[in-house]
Amino acid sequence: MPVNIPSLLPEQLLPITGITLGVAEAGIKKPDHKDLLVMLLDDDVRVAGVFTQNRFCAAPVIVAKEHMAVSSIRALVVNTGNANAGTGEEGLAHARATCNALAEILGCNVQQVLPFSTGVIMERLPIEAIVKGLPKAAANLKPDNWFAAAQAILTTDIVPKAVSKQIQLDGKTITITGIAKGSGMIRPNMATMLGFVATDAAISQALLQEMAQYAADRSFNRITVDGDTSTNDAFMLLATGTAGHAEIISRESAGFVQLQEAITAVAAELAKMIVRDGEGATKFISIQVDAGKNPQECTKVAYAIAHSPLVKTAFFASDPNLGRILAAIGYAGIDDLDVNGIQLYLDDVLVVENGGRANRYQEADGQRVMNQSEITVRVVLNRGAATTTVWTCDFSYDYVRINADYRS
Amino acid sequence: MPVNIPSLLPEQLLPITGITLGVAEAGIKKPDHKDLLVMLLDDDVRVAGVFTQNRFCAAPVIVAKEHMAVSSIRALVVNTGNANAGTGEEGLAHARATCNALAEILGCNVQQVLPFSTGVIMERLPIEAIVKGLPKAAANLKPDNWFAAAQAILTTDIVPKAVSKQIQLDGKTITITGIAKGSGMIRPNMATMLGFVATDAAISQALLQEMAQYAADRSFNRITVDGDTSTNDAFMLLATGTAGHAEIISRESAGFVQLQEAITAVAAELAKMIVRDGEGATKFISIQVDAGKNPQECTKVAYAIAHSPLVKTAFFASDPNLGRILAAIGYAGIDDLDVNGIQLYLDDVLVVENGGRANRYQEADGQRVMNQSEITVRVVLNRGAATTTVWTCDFSYDYVRINADYRS
Repeated sequence: MPVNIPSLLPEQLLPITGITLGVAEAGIKKPDHKDLLVMLLDDDVRVAGVFTQNRFCAAPVIVAKEHMAVSSIRALVVNTGNANAGTGEEGLAHARATCNALAEILGCNVQQVLPFSTGVIMERLPIEAIVKGLPKAAANLKPDNWFAAAQAILTTDIVPKAVSKQIQLDGKTITITGIAKGSGMIRPNMATMLGFVATDAAISQALLQEMAQYAADRSFNRITVDGDTSTNDAFMLLATGTAGHAEIISRESAGFVQLQEAITAVAAELAKMIVRDGEGATKFISIQVDAGKNPQECTKVAYAIAHSPLVKTAFFASDPNLGRILAAIGYAGIDDLDVNGIQLYLDDVLVVENGGRANRYQEADGQRVMNQSEITVRVVLNRGAATTTVWTCDFSYDYVRINADYRS
Repeated sequence: MPVNIPSLLPEQLLPITGITLGVAEAGIKKPDHKDLLVMLLDDDVRVAGVFTQNRFCAAPVIVAKEHMAVSSIRALVVNTGNANAGTGEEGLAHARATCNALAEILGCNVQQVLPFSTGVIMERLPIEAIVKGLPKAAANLKPDNWFAAAQAILTTDIVPKAVSKQIQLDGKTITITGIAKGSGMIRPNMATMLGFVATDAAISQALLQEMAQYAADRSFNRITVDGDTSTNDAFMLLATGTAGHAEIISRESAGFVQLQEAITAVAAELAKMIVRDGEGATKFISIQVDAGKNPQECTKVAYAIAHSPLVKTAFFASDPNLGRILAAIGYAGIDDLDVNGIQLYLDDVLVVENGGRANRYQEADGQRVMNQSEITVRVVLNRGAATTTVWTCDFSYDYVRINADYRS
């Protein structure tokens, strides 16, 4: 079950002027599940995005990048139940056909539509079902459909992931609303499975793209469930410019930092929800690596711990078998690491120093922290001033069950 | 249950003249389990070894390396149930005390003893129990104790792992006998958890060390269970020189290649046994990556597949959800990979070409292979002439059970 995700009421998600959303049941997933989402954007909405670095990137990712390079964007279309990845030329044709069908309905150019898919890899996209479902999704476009949209993009996720936030800027209220999905195959590299964050702030295209990367690097690019980087990861940031404040055109503009932090906070909250709803997750683990020589080595250590099946199963068992964390630090790839200089903390409990168990460490203290549903592992490398935090979950029977059963 | 490991009779393991072995129950593991092994070497036995690259390497690894650098070796001592890793200065003192106690019993120098430990990390070594057990192990030293030795070094392993092999060289019969242990925390980097291979061949120290590295690189360094590189990995190669042939003193010496291949074959057989008895394993998977630009990129792709929890759970489920393999290839870290040029085979079945499902691929063919207990995944990169094979197992409920329960 998801780890401490507060349940959400549809009305807690604030609409963004300039964006409407419609969902439909196209019949790609099992019956009685919405599996198709259309987002319609007003003329002036700016769109930025970051995509998976997986070389086997999905057909919709390829097409979305192509379209963003040549055109302004008027619509996004998302199907779940099928990733349209590892589908070769036919997959590309299907992604383009999806955009084309929606463009005809909305009366825009095919290149103004961005396609997104999530689900099983290497299966033919049921293009007929999608084309048939698009008019239904387009028929119920509404500004306050964010909750339905968050539901429609789920796959193995248990709960919808969405958040709204408001900040004051230049005397105006800026609203940010975001949705995301993802539960397994989660180790985003540039972005997560699917994340969409929209704001009514006014900001230049270049700065919006920069902000998308900034936010992704501090949110979706800091989470892992199973170390598997998806073929379909995409994080999209939309800005409608309808809030009425002066447009942000440089990093020195009033509100740039404020907006960047607010968008990053929304992205981070969504990213953490993905971990909290990670496949089979029973615990939410923050791994903070401090005092490294550079962020890269902190990240190496953090992911070595976050990906170790032995560490993850120990968390599942609430077993303070913390030597497994030492082993992961040791093989993280820092060749000149002096293990005698390291400290390891579990929340506030000092576990390791001087290359071994800390003198004042008592197993009962470790056990107390391991029993919690939220735990911070802190490694102090004592080699510099860099720091990184990565979020992950434990590894349970249910992860195996979910992934052994996924297609059946 | 172990995947296709033939059961072994003690008499199938051939003694090596110049080496005797003794085991005892020191009470480190649970009652009625042998957990202490002593190997006594005649004066002229040559010893080579390769050790873990984990920075948190265990106290016995540090001490063994020290002793090998300064002294000929007369004895090896192995305890299971406790890794003596992450134990700081006290751990080093305990490893030295173990050597010292055995040296006194055997009448040799403390530096002529090499210590090895395997078991839980970050627990104090029960040095009193070990010191008390050593005379018992030394009292039953026998040349034909290899099977008992293979049993005494197990931890979460289900079956003992041992093999003997003979070759003819210079009119003489050369015998090679090896034992190994390891089941979880298996992703050796230089060597596996614990592997000991002995031969009565006569070979110079320098060539013996070279052969140890050669064999490790083609056996223990090609296996993974869970991607966790242990703190205690060690692979030791012993040569007694008692077979009566002319000593091998250069790579051009008669028998050098023959011996090297035979030792590598023994090491590879032991390494594969570790995978077959991997924690929770139900399948044995060979991952062969062909036609890469260099061995490094083949290895990256092979380990990306071998470590993917999604791929491993699909094997457990016998589910030909093979898109997961594509995703792993895609994130393996080859930045200029052209996915349209790749072929993916499951045994003899062509699954993927031209960036997607092969035209003649039928799911029934994939299902037939996935149902087997032994499967070869073959990726053809079509970028060069390099090739690598890695051996791994699937990921089952039992892996989680074993590692959630390990200490309790």
